[in-house]
Amino acid sequence: MIEYERDGQAIYRQSFATIRAEADLAGIPADLEKLAVRVAHASGMVDVIRDLRFSPGAGSAGRAALQRGAPIIADCRMVAEGVTRSRLPADNAVICTLQDPRVPERASEIGNTRSAAALDFWHEHLPGSVVAIGNAPTALFRLLELLDAGAPKPALILGFPVGFVGAAESKDMLAADSRGVPFVIVRGRRGGSAMAAAAVNALATERE
Amino acid sequence: MIEYERDGQAIYRQSFATIRAEADLAGIPADLEKLAVRVAHASGMVDVIRDLRFSPGAGSAGRAALQRGAPIIADCRMVAEGVTRSRLPADNAVICTLQDPRVPERASEIGNTRSAAALDFWHEHLPGSVVAIGNAPTALFRLLELLDAGAPKPALILGFPVGFVGAAESKDMLAADSRGVPFVIVRGRRGGSAMAAAAVNALATERE
Repeated sequence: MIEYERDGQAIYRQSFATIRAEADLAGIPADLEKLAVRVAHASGMVDVIRDLRFSPGAGSAGRAALQRGAPIIADCRMVAEGVTRSRLPADNAVICTLQDPRVPERASEIGNTRSAAALDFWHEHLPGSVVAIGNAPTALFRLLELLDAGAPKPALILGFPVGFVGAAESKDMLAADSRGVPFVIVRGRRGGSAMAAAAVNALATERE
Repeated sequence: MIEYERDGQAIYRQSFATIRAEADLAGIPADLEKLAVRVAHASGMVDVIRDLRFSPGAGSAGRAALQRGAPIIADCRMVAEGVTRSRLPADNAVICTLQDPRVPERASEIGNTRSAAALDFWHEHLPGSVVAIGNAPTALFRLLELLDAGAPKPALILGFPVGFVGAAESKDMLAADSRGVPFVIVRGRRGGSAMAAAAVNALATERE
């Protein structure tokens, strides 16, 4: 018999308490406190909270959108899988178009990655949506291009692409000019589908 | 028009080159070099390579198992989604039992999390499998308990549970006595489904 905590609720409580004891949450507004804690929880890293950047009221905007039934649009299946359906306040749709059969041809046409081309099939879902990008920098770059071209605005962009080429740059570009859309990012190379999904899950309900 | 790299293959090449330029790969054996690079790639963190621990020949054992057609058993859907099917050498099955309808009742019976209870439905798939744990410490603890109770041995355990309660402890416990099963872990709180899936993807084919 191995000794370990087997109570899922106790594990959550203890995890969040550890994060709150260790983290510097001074710069985090009240409407993003639970998001910050959940992003740290999903990554096992308290210091990632230091790298969060956001527009004023981004958390409230995301919460209100989800309450209104906003769809959640994800750049990859892992983000979509990470969204806890039972937390969603309005049985919100979780949309990922990456496996749409039209995507590979569209990628060739626009000379971009499949992750970027997948956004060309977001149009009808975009107005008032919560966009969660947890993988591809090219998806975030493409979103900015589409917004510049007049695409409908989401209610919130959760920008957590990860990696060594374009991740830091795409997030900095969003933070510098988010085209009037509320946003939350984690600066730098870090990010990923677990953080993006955790951000959605934090905004979906006040329940921890 | 925003300037960014739009060629997926170029992005991969450039990312891997950056990681190899920055990383300290001196302690990584040849059969785990690509795995180490891919785990760094998936997390956006080169320094995670320093925290990898492994048994001798773990990479070769995993590669051989996948070539033989071993199933990949994941503790959560995000890991299963992260495995790139086109890389698998033998159309290997990717199994996740977390959504099995028997799991909640089993969790109550054994007084453990659903993630741990899901392992009680792995039995037939375990012999010679590649187990990829990218979320729950309780899943890794449970695997050790089942092995101690005589469960069939996997060919490889990829131990990447993440978080603040039990993650570091479960991985250290595996590394201290892996019950004769080859393993790769990342020490500490860090881990996650992206790293676990990246480890599988690295062993699935030599193609980068």
